[in-house]
Amino acid sequence: MKNHFPFPANGQCRAVVERVTPEIDGGRYAIKAIVGESITVEADILIDGHDKLSARLLYKHEADKEWSETLMQLFDNNRWIGHFSVEKQGFYSYTIEAWADHIATWMHEVDAKVRDGQHLKVELMQGELFLNDMAQKAKGDEKKAIQQAAKAMKGSYGPGEASYGEAIQIAMSQQMLDWSTKYPERQDAFRYKELKIYVDRKKAGFSAWYSMFPRSASREHGKHGTFRDVENLLPRIAEMGFDVLYLPPIHPIGITHRKGKNNSVTSEEGEPGVPYGIGSAEGGHEAIHSELGSLDDFKHLIEACKAYDMEIAMDLAIQCSPDHPWVKKHPDWFKILPDGTIKYAENPPKKYQDIYPVNFETADWKNLWQELKNLIYTWAEWGVRIIRVDNPHTKAFGFWEWVIAETKIDYPDMIFLSEAFTKPKVMQQLAKLGYTQSYTYYVWRTYKGEIVQYMEELTKGEMKYYFRPNFWPNTHDINPYMLQSKHEPLFLSRYFMAATLVSNYGIFGPTYEYLYHEPFPNKEEYGFSEKYEIKWWNWEHRNKLTYIITQVNRIRKENTAFHSTNNIDFCEIHNDQLLAYLKTASDGNRILCVVNLDGYNKQSGTVKMPLWKIHKNDWETYRVHDLITGATFSWRGEYNYVELDPYILPFHLFRIEDI
Amino acid sequence: MKNHFPFPANGQCRAVVERVTPEIDGGRYAIKAIVGESITVEADILIDGHDKLSARLLYKHEADKEWSETLMQLFDNNRWIGHFSVEKQGFYSYTIEAWADHIATWMHEVDAKVRDGQHLKVELMQGELFLNDMAQKAKGDEKKAIQQAAKAMKGSYGPGEASYGEAIQIAMSQQMLDWSTKYPERQDAFRYKELKIYVDRKKAGFSAWYSMFPRSASREHGKHGTFRDVENLLPRIAEMGFDVLYLPPIHPIGITHRKGKNNSVTSEEGEPGVPYGIGSAEGGHEAIHSELGSLDDFKHLIEACKAYDMEIAMDLAIQCSPDHPWVKKHPDWFKILPDGTIKYAENPPKKYQDIYPVNFETADWKNLWQELKNLIYTWAEWGVRIIRVDNPHTKAFGFWEWVIAETKIDYPDMIFLSEAFTKPKVMQQLAKLGYTQSYTYYVWRTYKGEIVQYMEELTKGEMKYYFRPNFWPNTHDINPYMLQSKHEPLFLSRYFMAATLVSNYGIFGPTYEYLYHEPFPNKEEYGFSEKYEIKWWNWEHRNKLTYIITQVNRIRKENTAFHSTNNIDFCEIHNDQLLAYLKTASDGNRILCVVNLDGYNKQSGTVKMPLWKIHKNDWETYRVHDLITGATFSWRGEYNYVELDPYILPFHLFRIEDI
Repeated sequence: MKNHFPFPANGQCRAVVERVTPEIDGGRYAIKAIVGESITVEADILIDGHDKLSARLLYKHEADKEWSETLMQLFDNNRWIGHFSVEKQGFYSYTIEAWADHIATWMHEVDAKVRDGQHLKVELMQGELFLNDMAQKAKGDEKKAIQQAAKAMKGSYGPGEASYGEAIQIAMSQQMLDWSTKYPERQDAFRYKELKIYVDRKKAGFSAWYSMFPRSASREHGKHGTFRDVENLLPRIAEMGFDVLYLPPIHPIGITHRKGKNNSVTSEEGEPGVPYGIGSAEGGHEAIHSELGSLDDFKHLIEACKAYDMEIAMDLAIQCSPDHPWVKKHPDWFKILPDGTIKYAENPPKKYQDIYPVNFETADWKNLWQELKNLIYTWAEWGVRIIRVDNPHTKAFGFWEWVIAETKIDYPDMIFLSEAFTKPKVMQQLAKLGYTQSYTYYVWRTYKGEIVQYMEELTKGEMKYYFRPNFWPNTHDINPYMLQSKHEPLFLSRYFMAATLVSNYGIFGPTYEYLYHEPFPNKEEYGFSEKYEIKWWNWEHRNKLTYIITQVNRIRKENTAFHSTNNIDFCEIHNDQLLAYLKTASDGNRILCVVNLDGYNKQSGTVKMPLWKIHKNDWETYRVHDLITGATFSWRGEYNYVELDPYILPFHLFRIEDI
Repeated sequence: MKNHFPFPANGQCRAVVERVTPEIDGGRYAIKAIVGESITVEADILIDGHDKLSARLLYKHEADKEWSETLMQLFDNNRWIGHFSVEKQGFYSYTIEAWADHIATWMHEVDAKVRDGQHLKVELMQGELFLNDMAQKAKGDEKKAIQQAAKAMKGSYGPGEASYGEAIQIAMSQQMLDWSTKYPERQDAFRYKELKIYVDRKKAGFSAWYSMFPRSASREHGKHGTFRDVENLLPRIAEMGFDVLYLPPIHPIGITHRKGKNNSVTSEEGEPGVPYGIGSAEGGHEAIHSELGSLDDFKHLIEACKAYDMEIAMDLAIQCSPDHPWVKKHPDWFKILPDGTIKYAENPPKKYQDIYPVNFETADWKNLWQELKNLIYTWAEWGVRIIRVDNPHTKAFGFWEWVIAETKIDYPDMIFLSEAFTKPKVMQQLAKLGYTQSYTYYVWRTYKGEIVQYMEELTKGEMKYYFRPNFWPNTHDINPYMLQSKHEPLFLSRYFMAATLVSNYGIFGPTYEYLYHEPFPNKEEYGFSEKYEIKWWNWEHRNKLTYIITQVNRIRKENTAFHSTNNIDFCEIHNDQLLAYLKTASDGNRILCVVNLDGYNKQSGTVKMPLWKIHKNDWETYRVHDLITGATFSWRGEYNYVELDPYILPFHLFRIEDI
């Protein structure tokens, strides 16, 4: 009878590996990690019958030729676990091998029979065979020791069973187990498919962003700011503790249909326009808006940042003003309407005639992709290693996957921040495709329940493997209703949560610090927004926000519990206005944050400390040390009282210390 | 700059399809269905930007050349849903195609602008282009109608805008939508990977098994039963409503180390041995134990069953007595020890010297697999279409996957029941590999909480797609502690739940019916088990169990709600001794079962009916009709009282009827 299906490659392979975590969409996407991070891999590992299994976790960096491996351990219900640490940037592969471990099965059998009082023979003959195999693989003294053990096995069933006792001892020894671990019989191992990790530099996982319009950097009222002005501000921004300085687009701004103040569809003579209307006769995305300075000035700024351990983040907005050079050079990169005109941006019935979106469905897409990659590489050559991408969700997914992977090969330090405020699954998709960090819904998560739920989604579900949240309490596009109140305690608490719930966060600079709150009527946007005009700020001014930001950034750097996002656990506290969360690091650093969400009333409650997380017993006393105020309290056991007056400070930032 | 990664095949493709359900382990395994079943497929479907999407569910039977397709609908949060029905046995493939629907986007745009009072031109020019494309694909009258519409579009921007109104009307019409559905622009569609379904015949999804040892079929005391005796019992078994008659192995039984009564390691002269000690000088798995009759007798029995709408299930136990022909012919199919002997079955320190397990690690595995396939095919040629596999979890997984797939090509009617009582993930794995039905933990799920939890695991999680539970309140290997009581109400309720919680169930025949309860001391096994001796049963005897079994099997057949397993919902009832569950079928059949788990006391409570499931309002009255007793009750709204005296009957089997 003819067969319909081929035999498998190796019918002698009996193990099966399944349901591996982490694994995103069947291995379609890479998970993310940070240099030095320990990766925990779990899998269901099965075998028919009652034989023992062994499993190893295999991993290698893209530059490695050989796999490294580590033992996996069974913990429960056929679930195995293993760990390895990623020490280099770039792509890693990992997979699992599992096999029927005949030596382990044999050891179990010998053990059970010896305990049952049986006299063994054929089992010891088998032991001799195992040892002979191992001896072939071993070298030097070890080889000799194994050969010696094999000899004992042989002697155990030979004349007078001379070495019987010795052979039994060897068969049941730790030494035998160690040898079998070192020289396993794994020719019929099952090998799982290969999965990927992308390992980023430290800053991808821990950063504090400060965003500002460079044209508002001048100390002189009414004057267009320059890169030089920004350089003058670096000491101030660095002193506050930020390490990324993000600038909206710095390219020439279009003239045609230029927008005026407050997003007016017409502009007056002399209005500076919107930096997102990119491109003019001066040039496009590879040119610098001349009023900000020259390319050399910009490079000088990039260099100057280094002295402050700061980096510039550029803004990649793939869209053009009607005056952008691409419009003439590559009209087919835009959508050409049946009447021959280029389609401007629309959200029907609304029209945005100052913007031409790039058409990713162009037949010339390969050249478009290449040009965009070249653009990123040009910026990289200027020294830029962080790019905030404007509205990535309105550009083809396939492009991002390709261009990010390309860039990371040549510039593994490159960080891409996805500025997508859109549907949850689209935001997830962009992160899966390779975005290093992502904007989030934090700005709209204000009640305790929704903050906790959102944090659990980000840190406890599958997203924790690939989506690195970056929390912003405001942006230059979003002036949340809550902050339109200009109520300082709310500015403090919203800032504080952004900076402490997750390890990457940012603020839209002076606007936040100085409690700027003017809304565009009935919108969560700024009135007289810097997007449409030049602002003047009194950069000399320092206030309570300045002080708190400075303190929090310093404390974040000093306490490793703040260097990761997923290490968070919310603590029970029976007051819906109080939010308490514990962050713990493997080096023993433990931080408890308590926030009063009510900006107007004193709130109190009893925090339930998860004692097992801080390694304390119920009767033990420990110190909580408020790192902002310096106050210390002696706490004991699970339940401890807190009280927060928002007019003094709407939060506690406690370090938990042993007494 | 050279690229590191190739461009994707089609960069113009913008849609993404993800997280498809059902999909088992990334598509590695097929899901299961029954002929006529409707398959519901869901997926996350995404696109960049704001364009409209269209998605189709594609499916085809293995014999089909072309894909069929059906529209998918968005229901929420980027989740799309579609359905198709599987009408033929065998493998189906399914997948999803999604694309940026420019016509839908255009219709939305026209709609928004018209409502805004804008005067359109370029949009209607675009409409003309769309219609011209469609006309190319259409034929006959439809082609003419589309051309007419295109003409109206042209006229709308021509001299005097003569047909402007008509063009707008067309652009916003259902007709336009229908045309665009029929002639979509899908050249840049995203195609998801292909997933598989295996479609079985009806009996795979709905069956009642009766198990018996044919050697105990004789009406004469002390005489070895025969296939003829079994034939004589068919009317009785059919009258009780069973449709599968499962017989433990019917092959020659080994002599060497033959087991005696009560699993004694030695047997007396004349003891019949264990049917699982397969093989003697008479032959192996392809031979018939001569005391049962000839192969022709067996084939006659198979034929005779047809008149009763019944089928024989054979028992495949891949193991050999030391006297099995394979031992001589293929000693290398067994594990040969270093002393040259064959390894018998062991569970150290216990020994089972009457059984040689087959060694699936043999280097000659291809011939072994082939021989086992040939064996199944031989049985199939005898007319067997149901095989219960003994301990499949002690044979290599890869073998099952291959042999089941092979068999199903030539014998798509073949049903394989997995008799694996082992770790949950191993049982799941066997089902994934192709087993049609599986034994379960039902026999050990006795309290309400554990029954509900287990049912939810089987019917609400991923297992519902591939694992078809077959519930047995006892088997010839398992005499559960609860039934060792010989307490009739417990025999009734355990039977009833097996038969009504799921659509496939079975009992170990006369033993159950006649409340046989003798345990092997301190074990959940039968004392004086039929596995080791011939039993005599008074087949004429009928009791309350006989009556109830007959009624329940009749009612199961008549009520479609019992024909599936996953259509179950448990009803709130505040009494831990009362279990209530609703089963509903798409044809309107609705059954409510209420069981008193306490076999010794009357129990009462108030069932909460999920009214939306039975399409009733809170104020409506409906009839519940006990199909066993004939009693009817008028119920109203959500909460209704029930009371069950176990000494009368420990359950209600209500059909819900409109008044």
